[in-house]
Amino acid sequence: MSNEMMKYNPHVSVDCVVFGFDGEKLKVLLIERIISENNDNFSDKKLPGSIIYEDEDLDTAATRILNELTGLKNIFLSQFHSFGDPKRTSNPRDKNWLEKTTQLEIGRIVTVGYVALIKISRKIIFESENTTARWYDIKTLKTMKLAFDHNQIAEEALKHIRHKVMLEPYTLFELLPQKFTMTQLRNLYDIVLETKSDVRNFQKKMLQVEGLEQLNEVQKDVPYRAPRLYRFDKKKAKNTLNKSRKK
Amino acid sequence: MSNEMMKYNPHVSVDCVVFGFDGEKLKVLLIERIISENNDNFSDKKLPGSIIYEDEDLDTAATRILNELTGLKNIFLSQFHSFGDPKRTSNPRDKNWLEKTTQLEIGRIVTVGYVALIKISRKIIFESENTTARWYDIKTLKTMKLAFDHNQIAEEALKHIRHKVMLEPYTLFELLPQKFTMTQLRNLYDIVLETKSDVRNFQKKMLQVEGLEQLNEVQKDVPYRAPRLYRFDKKKAKNTLNKSRKK
Repeated sequence: MSNEMMKYNPHVSVDCVVFGFDGEKLKVLLIERIISENNDNFSDKKLPGSIIYEDEDLDTAATRILNELTGLKNIFLSQFHSFGDPKRTSNPRDKNWLEKTTQLEIGRIVTVGYVALIKISRKIIFESENTTARWYDIKTLKTMKLAFDHNQIAEEALKHIRHKVMLEPYTLFELLPQKFTMTQLRNLYDIVLETKSDVRNFQKKMLQVEGLEQLNEVQKDVPYRAPRLYRFDKKKAKNTLNKSRKK
Repeated sequence: MSNEMMKYNPHVSVDCVVFGFDGEKLKVLLIERIISENNDNFSDKKLPGSIIYEDEDLDTAATRILNELTGLKNIFLSQFHSFGDPKRTSNPRDKNWLEKTTQLEIGRIVTVGYVALIKISRKIIFESENTTARWYDIKTLKTMKLAFDHNQIAEEALKHIRHKVMLEPYTLFELLPQKFTMTQLRNLYDIVLETKSDVRNFQKKMLQVEGLEQLNEVQKDVPYRAPRLYRFDKKKAKNTLNKSRKK
């Protein structure tokens, strides 16, 4: 088969958009890419992603690749969109880097986007031999030029989460620690939905959410009046939701 | 590049799940596939889909392929999920048919699923030279063995629509004629959401939907007491929805 034909045949990759929340900022996990150009090393950032193996399902590939690049295990990744603009690999820098790292001749890559919401406390093998994974504030993404079309993929992932939160508000609790303050919850909600909620109204609304429980505990080690802690009982919320849907 | 490498490189296709509603049944558009086997012609059904061109975006490919195979134009197709099980092309019948029709050596195909909801009255070039497109009741799909994993793709598309309807109930109105009866609306709702609504409760609930308007008209040419007609003002509904989200 000719080289021409080969190029017609795209490669398929997966890219993972992993979101975490530190109580104030919504963050996304990026890895570093080092490129040798004109006897100089240049580095930039990309989403954890790579080309799928021949005998691998898409979901399996996403789990494997995220683990290889970040050390993360047992992450619930869900597919949200595939990206196939023929020009997405047209930047010579991206193309050269890819051909060097994969040892493949790259014509075109269709990538399948996966998204995950994780507790930011989860262990990531930082600075191991193979990973350069770090959390980046999603607000700084706007000023960063990521590899390929990864800015767009991250943006679409965020839109997808926003849409999901409207249907299933408890989606956001995946991002919060076991126990959290109302301010943390409001920050997260406002970042994802691009709103600016009123403090009192927000609290009132949230206390009506089935599964949200006020604890008899306050946040420790804070230099101001310690705010009350809350937790979220997912099981309770899901049961209520299912009941209301059957009506 | 070796043939081995070639197979590593999957092909990428798109498959379109187009739903229509005839007032009683939810239908899906399938095309016929004719296969020559042992000097005999055998035929079965598949979703309209094909391999993407080298220089084509996924959305463009979906629009082109749906048009080529069914004659449908100006259809709002939206991507819902990609399917990449390495075994999805392992049936020799599927593989042989593909290699014959595409003139390509096929190792593996990752397909991007698109879904559309259309008014069933829309013109489809039936029995033209190139199309064999026909509507099939989704209930009969369970007893049909479609090509490749197309049963699964159609099933996933329906789940996607179900999910979307819960968030945006007016999604379903895309499938109804300009003017429709309450029974038609209830039938559609019950099929998609797998419910069995009470006639009175359903009507009561629907009359609260912003944008749904009762007309001073009744259905014509029916052998029983003519039911009243309704129409749906999408603009009105969207405006209300947006307002309520901003609260």
